[in-house]
Amino acid sequence: MDLKSYLNEKREIIEASLKNYFPEPQGPAADVIKAMNYSLFAGGKRLRPILCMAGAEAVGGDEKDVIPVACALELIHTYSLIHDDLPVMDNDDMRRGKPTSHKVFGEAVAVLAGDGLLTEAFHLMTETVLTDRLDSLTLLNVMGMIATAAGYGGMVGGQVVDIQMEGKEVDADIVEFIHRRKTGALITASVRAGAFLGGGNEHQVNAITSYGKNIGLAFQISDDILDVEGDSRRMGKNVGGDARKKKITYPAVLGLGRSKEIQEKTIKEAIESLEPFDQKADPLRHIAQYIIERKR
Amino acid sequence: MDLKSYLNEKREIIEASLKNYFPEPQGPAADVIKAMNYSLFAGGKRLRPILCMAGAEAVGGDEKDVIPVACALELIHTYSLIHDDLPVMDNDDMRRGKPTSHKVFGEAVAVLAGDGLLTEAFHLMTETVLTDRLDSLTLLNVMGMIATAAGYGGMVGGQVVDIQMEGKEVDADIVEFIHRRKTGALITASVRAGAFLGGGNEHQVNAITSYGKNIGLAFQISDDILDVEGDSRRMGKNVGGDARKKKITYPAVLGLGRSKEIQEKTIKEAIESLEPFDQKADPLRHIAQYIIERKR
Repeated sequence: MDLKSYLNEKREIIEASLKNYFPEPQGPAADVIKAMNYSLFAGGKRLRPILCMAGAEAVGGDEKDVIPVACALELIHTYSLIHDDLPVMDNDDMRRGKPTSHKVFGEAVAVLAGDGLLTEAFHLMTETVLTDRLDSLTLLNVMGMIATAAGYGGMVGGQVVDIQMEGKEVDADIVEFIHRRKTGALITASVRAGAFLGGGNEHQVNAITSYGKNIGLAFQISDDILDVEGDSRRMGKNVGGDARKKKITYPAVLGLGRSKEIQEKTIKEAIESLEPFDQKADPLRHIAQYIIERKR
Repeated sequence: MDLKSYLNEKREIIEASLKNYFPEPQGPAADVIKAMNYSLFAGGKRLRPILCMAGAEAVGGDEKDVIPVACALELIHTYSLIHDDLPVMDNDDMRRGKPTSHKVFGEAVAVLAGDGLLTEAFHLMTETVLTDRLDSLTLLNVMGMIATAAGYGGMVGGQVVDIQMEGKEVDADIVEFIHRRKTGALITASVRAGAFLGGGNEHQVNAITSYGKNIGLAFQISDDILDVEGDSRRMGKNVGGDARKKKITYPAVLGLGRSKEIQEKTIKEAIESLEPFDQKADPLRHIAQYIIERKR
């Protein structure tokens, strides 16, 4: 299969759904809607929604069923970027080649735009069309699972430790703790949500979860590596920022060589997790490979 | 009925449920859990959860059914207070007689504690026990309604306009726009969620919604009035802050006399909305009266 066409095709579906769903800025509160739109349509890869769709496909589900949840995952991801970029957090000025939200709209509106996106994500999930294939109980379970992944035991918890550990000496356990929560949890939830909503059985969902955990960790390691070896222009942000800010990264804690070994091992394990699946899981297999090879 | 005993009894149920639900701070991310707990157990009135329970009672529902959603409403309210108090927003140092979250935990953890509470609110709602009386479709509808009330069309939208209008000349329409969204939307959603989850019919839910809109507006007007006439010690925060910060309030825009007239009119309309209900709506009637008389 041609992964690039696959990613483009799915991304277009997500872009159209997000645009269709999202309101035109109007009324006295237009600025916060503008800020939500600004970050949401800033050229993201839409990896989480695509993983959700590919997860459904792998278990033989219908991708149409998962689109609201897939879009909601992108809203959650976008909210987390806006808040992470704030001066009181990572203090980043550029993201995806554009000034960050607080640089354009001010910090107050940026905080509220993040809050609005996170809230809207859950609203959007409740708008999932229920069918004979997809019942409301499954949807509620998936929503609970996504909230857990985004909350203090997942993304929020990872981010707080990430910030608190800046500049400190940490061991491999802590960098793994951070990466598995800060980035890994929502990536795992994305592909897992797809498998659940697509009607996967327990065995299939477990296999997909294992895949998700592995690529989630590998993805953050590749982010770390790109910050050392990547090209600023292609990345749309300055590289080398992690080292300047003394961030906790795999290369910083374990060195570049060992980081690449771990990344390769986790990708290998991700692909092995998919053994029970037929060619319908090929997109997931190719996405795993892409995570090692990506340049942005 | 004795409102004070009623409020105490319901508040104890909510405190116990929140404590039972909420985790002990532990692990590397303990600080954000500590910060979530700190604000959640800072002595709030639990008005939104109690309104949710009273809304269910009014339509003949079982209050047990609504407790997770009632608690979730308090989490959403608490998150909004933490973010509103941030230096980039209202910059408040004291809340309910205690230093605000960012004063104790720093701004980064405060932002994340708010994010964590908002996320956990939706998780908690998905844990509602479904029964013959309460099905998953009703729960999903209520969750969507609460998200709408909390999002850019409600609380987030009200807060952004509130901040942007500080120090500006505005008319009565704008102050009403702010109050109906910033405070009114979640209060309305609280009592409405109770009526829905309690099995109210369309007619009943509409009447309760009208009640909620009226007391929601009246509640924020009483907040404004207390900031002019209230007692700092009893309020647990400095009074007079609205005028110092040139906040948009009813007294500032319309004067104290006219503000009290509007408050009385909305409370009267709230109580009139409850005409179709029998004595099971007495708690809602007494709560409306309490909003005018409250001292904190």
